[in-house]
Amino acid sequence: MDHAHFPSWPDVAPRLIAVAAGREAADTVIRGGVWINVHSREALPDHSIAIAEGRIAFVGPDASHCIGPDTEIIEADGRYMIPGLCDAHMHIESGMLTPAEFARAVIPHGTTSMFTDPHEIANVLGLEGVRMMHDEALLQPVNIFTQMPSCAPSAPGLETTGFEITPEDVAEAMTWPGIIGLGEMMNFPGVSNADPKMLAEIAATQRAGKTVGGHYASPDLGPAFAAYVAGGPADDHEGTCEADAIARVRQGMRSMMRLGSAWYDVASQITAVTEKGLDPRNFILCTDDCHSGTLVNDGHMNRVVRHAIACGCDPLIALQMATINTATHFGLEREIGSIAPGRRADIILSSDLTELPIELVMARGRVVAENGEIRVDCPHFDWPDAARNTVHLGHLLTGKDFEIPAPQGANRVRANVIGVVENQAPTKALKAELPVIGGLVEAEGETCQIALVERHRATGGVTNAFVSGFGYQGKMAMASTVAHDSHHMIVVGTCREQMALAANRLAEVGGGVTIFRDDEELALVELPIAGLMSDSPATQVAAKAQKMVEAMQACGCRLNNAYMQHSLLALVVIPELRISDLGLVDVRTFEKIDLLEPLA
Amino acid sequence: MDHAHFPSWPDVAPRLIAVAAGREAADTVIRGGVWINVHSREALPDHSIAIAEGRIAFVGPDASHCIGPDTEIIEADGRYMIPGLCDAHMHIESGMLTPAEFARAVIPHGTTSMFTDPHEIANVLGLEGVRMMHDEALLQPVNIFTQMPSCAPSAPGLETTGFEITPEDVAEAMTWPGIIGLGEMMNFPGVSNADPKMLAEIAATQRAGKTVGGHYASPDLGPAFAAYVAGGPADDHEGTCEADAIARVRQGMRSMMRLGSAWYDVASQITAVTEKGLDPRNFILCTDDCHSGTLVNDGHMNRVVRHAIACGCDPLIALQMATINTATHFGLEREIGSIAPGRRADIILSSDLTELPIELVMARGRVVAENGEIRVDCPHFDWPDAARNTVHLGHLLTGKDFEIPAPQGANRVRANVIGVVENQAPTKALKAELPVIGGLVEAEGETCQIALVERHRATGGVTNAFVSGFGYQGKMAMASTVAHDSHHMIVVGTCREQMALAANRLAEVGGGVTIFRDDEELALVELPIAGLMSDSPATQVAAKAQKMVEAMQACGCRLNNAYMQHSLLALVVIPELRISDLGLVDVRTFEKIDLLEPLA
Repeated sequence: MDHAHFPSWPDVAPRLIAVAAGREAADTVIRGGVWINVHSREALPDHSIAIAEGRIAFVGPDASHCIGPDTEIIEADGRYMIPGLCDAHMHIESGMLTPAEFARAVIPHGTTSMFTDPHEIANVLGLEGVRMMHDEALLQPVNIFTQMPSCAPSAPGLETTGFEITPEDVAEAMTWPGIIGLGEMMNFPGVSNADPKMLAEIAATQRAGKTVGGHYASPDLGPAFAAYVAGGPADDHEGTCEADAIARVRQGMRSMMRLGSAWYDVASQITAVTEKGLDPRNFILCTDDCHSGTLVNDGHMNRVVRHAIACGCDPLIALQMATINTATHFGLEREIGSIAPGRRADIILSSDLTELPIELVMARGRVVAENGEIRVDCPHFDWPDAARNTVHLGHLLTGKDFEIPAPQGANRVRANVIGVVENQAPTKALKAELPVIGGLVEAEGETCQIALVERHRATGGVTNAFVSGFGYQGKMAMASTVAHDSHHMIVVGTCREQMALAANRLAEVGGGVTIFRDDEELALVELPIAGLMSDSPATQVAAKAQKMVEAMQACGCRLNNAYMQHSLLALVVIPELRISDLGLVDVRTFEKIDLLEPLA
Repeated sequence: MDHAHFPSWPDVAPRLIAVAAGREAADTVIRGGVWINVHSREALPDHSIAIAEGRIAFVGPDASHCIGPDTEIIEADGRYMIPGLCDAHMHIESGMLTPAEFARAVIPHGTTSMFTDPHEIANVLGLEGVRMMHDEALLQPVNIFTQMPSCAPSAPGLETTGFEITPEDVAEAMTWPGIIGLGEMMNFPGVSNADPKMLAEIAATQRAGKTVGGHYASPDLGPAFAAYVAGGPADDHEGTCEADAIARVRQGMRSMMRLGSAWYDVASQITAVTEKGLDPRNFILCTDDCHSGTLVNDGHMNRVVRHAIACGCDPLIALQMATINTATHFGLEREIGSIAPGRRADIILSSDLTELPIELVMARGRVVAENGEIRVDCPHFDWPDAARNTVHLGHLLTGKDFEIPAPQGANRVRANVIGVVENQAPTKALKAELPVIGGLVEAEGETCQIALVERHRATGGVTNAFVSGFGYQGKMAMASTVAHDSHHMIVVGTCREQMALAANRLAEVGGGVTIFRDDEELALVELPIAGLMSDSPATQVAAKAQKMVEAMQACGCRLNNAYMQHSLLALVVIPELRISDLGLVDVRTFEKIDLLEPLA
């Protein structure tokens, strides 16, 4: 039963009424738990829940009138009965997993609703790719709502994506059953400047009565922020400090506070509630981006709620931030986000409200996980060849494709170099003097080569430049088709032949991440779906990703979480220096710049 | 500009953005007030609001960048800037006023949004009457959202209404621009018993994504209540004690607490928040029914908020209960209910947060009232003859129509008598021994006659019975075409000839209320629209209503607020004994009973 076709409340109201009245027996009764009531913000001991047709029919101190001979009884044994957790904003692709495998990984952690923005696949496969993600999402036993991506390309004029999203695409998507709103409107300068295309996307969403996701990634809370708010985005998850959270809520937005694999924005913002005492109803928890390793080892929304509680938030308020607040934000408060009659029976049993161990997970009335083990199938969409065959290089690459010719007669040159900064998304715009050997500029020392290899249209285009900070040594190269946001292929290496090997290898396997050293492949993460996702289980992907990290270290990389740096080197919306298929981009000025400069 | 055609946020986003950014000048700036922020629940001094196109473009400490040479400046002078108040559930007809005149009466009190259920006119004129109310509502300078009436007749089989509302009517109404949801689902036994017609109305509303209003008027919080909740109503305003409010909120409904002219249900329920500490977000204030006298003398939603504060509620929480909580409930939180960018500029200025004097009212960016004086036109709908000519008696009535023949040969009889109870809607089922004179049963002492005169189809039908408790003396009669819920005509009198005079008089003027004594009309309230409403100003209607009350007292009536008792005597859904066009109804059993019984 997919979730767009899951029977609606009015479809099953006669049965729910009959069960609540005691005229018919429930399918399932959860007996004798503490009802976490996110409407009243209370923990009410000794309650039972009667479930029929996948929805909650009755909650009260005594559900014995709802029990018949065929009613399945689940003994809560005094445990907390908590609404299934909601992730208010996230990108499934960040887990390198398809929606099905992502669902399989997070269901045991108690996540029963996700609001996902398939922004990455939109860059590779356009509206059709979004539809595939949407369709696989609808097959799952939990609720995966799709936010229509708003910004592909994210930096028009500075990169070439596989496909572009238009206002017409947005209007079309608003008619699909699983679309809940517009994905994060990242083009905040565009909104502040009333860019007609961005406003048309927002308008199509608002006119459909759906929620416009925001993304205001700037510390400027002056008129530029005010203008962005006036444009219509209803939430924002880019706040990083208390003042950000307060400003957003005061302006009528919802503040989404994220704890992803690499985002730590809860502790710094939740003080708006815990210390400043603001009404918590407009604060929401989300992950934004989680790697498969995080999902396998640390959890998902349970990790975020636990963290919020550890930050001093009242557990009931923290749970509201991951349940009813989210549901209300998306206009779903009578469908999900609480344990109350009529709602989908998405329920967690946990014996501790601080550590939040997830002992049983029910979604739409079915037990979907117990003690960390998934108990249901998460069906795979039949991904078409077009989605499995997205790495088009035009020709077999050789070392020659990565050569950087020096100006006629130069012995040394000055190059603009992308400087990687540990644990930060922004890069530094560096300069380095490099030697010329045989007419070619050669990297040396800290600096190695980076190439952006065009992979959407088989143009054969290779943009070459330099990067520093990874610490690579020997003859190696690393390549990835996860290359935000246009998702060409980023190759970083100390050796042009190894770079060619790595690039060709990804073309061969249909995308992913690989590392070569001395002609040997040290690690490979196959991501055959759009070059972004695997349809293997999260444990396998996490293990391969871990091997990839170890291979990076074996090649001399000293940085924490350096794969993230690698995959973001083409993200031409975050300063300072990035590479795109169109060249080197100075994101401080949003202008293309030359790779080489004359020596002074 | 009517409110369905008021430009939407996306329509005017470019202008709002330009004003917020300081590139264009605002139409109006309110400068230097205390921003009552119902999102964060804060009172923030020294803020200004910039308004353009009737919507809020900017709120911040300094709006000088939004001011141009043509910008109108309103100096808040440190006063509170409060979102316009919302009445979450109400019946305009209770004011005996058309929507236009009702709006004119309440706008100076700071009400800028109303959620109105034109249930009374639905009984008289059916869907067409609802549409007329809806259309006049849309003409007003404030936001009047219409809830489609759900229960006409309210007691099928026990009364005959002018028109009936069907599930098809409900589905049709859901497509109208001003319909916000389904009006109070009063047939709570029907819902608990899964009555297909009631469930079809709820389903049509839920499928349209709109809000189902509830009405569960019973103290039974057991399975019958649970079954009602499982049927889908999203709110309830019939709670009368703290336990009622708590039960509704826990079950995922919103508790609407009312202070009407005759309803006092706030003080007894708001302790759920003020003492029990429940999350206040699901508590909402409303009036349900206000007489024109209340509107003229005491106020409207400002009266309710003031009362809630007097009950010990934090003023900011009380204001949330009359603004954002209501807006969120109806899916309008990004349209009304707060002072934040994009929302309709519905703003009150007040110098005191406890007494809440309403010093300036702005609606959709226009000053609509100042210091209690209306400043705008409230346009009248062109009510058709069908709406102005609804009192059809069939023939001129005489005393003979009100005769109650005794059984053959009886000297005395025992009669079932409706016993009026002061200040209560329920009546008592009494019995009285009455004399027979000339073959007719005659009222005596405390008991006088009551008649339900059919007025919708000119059948000439008159149902006669007895009532006690009004204390009328001499030869008098009082008649009203406001006769809940089927709104025939209720005539109460001590003299059959006076009863005929009063009834004929209402037929002559097209409905209203009249009192005759000794062939002289003591008071008349003309209600020419459907026999329910006047299109005269509230002050005039209130003055006439006051004269009517005085006339009742002059006739010996000792009861407080006795007109309400009069108009409710045909309300065959509230125990114990009522009259309808079909006879005397025992509402304890929902059965018709004989007027006369053999003497034991």
